[in-house]
Amino acid sequence: MSRPTNRRQDNHKISRELFVLTYGALVAQLCKDYEKDEDVNKCLDRMGYNLGTRLVEDFLARSAVRKCRSYSETVEVIAQIAFKMYLGITPSVSCNNTTENEFFLILDNNPLVDFVEELPAGRSSLCYCNLLCGVIRGALEMVHLAAEVTFVQDRLKGDDVTEIGITFLKKLEDKKHKRNK
Amino acid sequence: MSRPTNRRQDNHKISRELFVLTYGALVAQLCKDYEKDEDVNKCLDRMGYNLGTRLVEDFLARSAVRKCRSYSETVEVIAQIAFKMYLGITPSVSCNNTTENEFFLILDNNPLVDFVEELPAGRSSLCYCNLLCGVIRGALEMVHLAAEVTFVQDRLKGDDVTEIGITFLKKLEDKKHKRNK
Repeated sequence: MSRPTNRRQDNHKISRELFVLTYGALVAQLCKDYEKDEDVNKCLDRMGYNLGTRLVEDFLARSAVRKCRSYSETVEVIAQIAFKMYLGITPSVSCNNTTENEFFLILDNNPLVDFVEELPAGRSSLCYCNLLCGVIRGALEMVHLAAEVTFVQDRLKGDDVTEIGITFLKKLEDKKHKRNK
Repeated sequence: MSRPTNRRQDNHKISRELFVLTYGALVAQLCKDYEKDEDVNKCLDRMGYNLGTRLVEDFLARSAVRKCRSYSETVEVIAQIAFKMYLGITPSVSCNNTTENEFFLILDNNPLVDFVEELPAGRSSLCYCNLLCGVIRGALEMVHLAAEVTFVQDRLKGDDVTEIGITFLKKLEDKKHKRNK
């Protein structure tokens, strides 16, 4: 990873419109490439995973967060710091009090769909923003936290809110854990 | 185009790292899809064109620039306002004094290649950032200025600088002009 050392902090920001439209072009291209929605979703997740594994270094350097001591602290860092830093939004967090390893990020305002009114025709199973799930999964894995990350609700599919579910699996130290790349 | 009306101005910015890595994923996908560099370049240009035609509305609304009275004024607006607004950089501008319709944007610092050290193996003709050319071309066409926009130099190809050439063609009112979509 090459990065100029003299880049000023205020140069870290770009217009979100350009990003959102570029992301739309990426999804459109994948829809051209793959007939099945599940394949597009998988591809977005895999791309996101690769992004997450690279982005985490940038995140740790810029955020200066310390090691989290619990899953809930980790999820709060994702919502309050990472989402804010990278997408300019702060999702609210809820958790499943029974299982203690399941959390939900509720996105009231999802910039990635700024220019999207509905899913493309015939693409009703498309997880348009699935890249985000991959990014979270990849970044978490780099800090030795294996997790399943999926959209559990999506406004583009008619749900009331857009909600990402994060289920923490065993820690990566446990080598028996099968990595879901 | 749907856009929430109550979005605050400070919400227009996102982290450029996320954008740059997402753009990299897009280019990588196109390299998977197309064997020939020229086809990837064309695809990036076409995608950029579509982005540009949509982005121009956002640009005109947010920048409040007035109608430019010359090609040189137009290029200055692109360099000083549009690049600053969308990519956080300000390229320098030079022009071909003989032809008067040829201009060059010199990018000292190109954020799109932040994480790119070199072109992928076997991809020596790839114009990695060709999306930008398409964006400029599409945006110009929406204000009735037809132009050819190409990379004339590229650091990723060993050139000293990265330079985008803009050649203005006839105005679109002249229907004889063949649109290069």
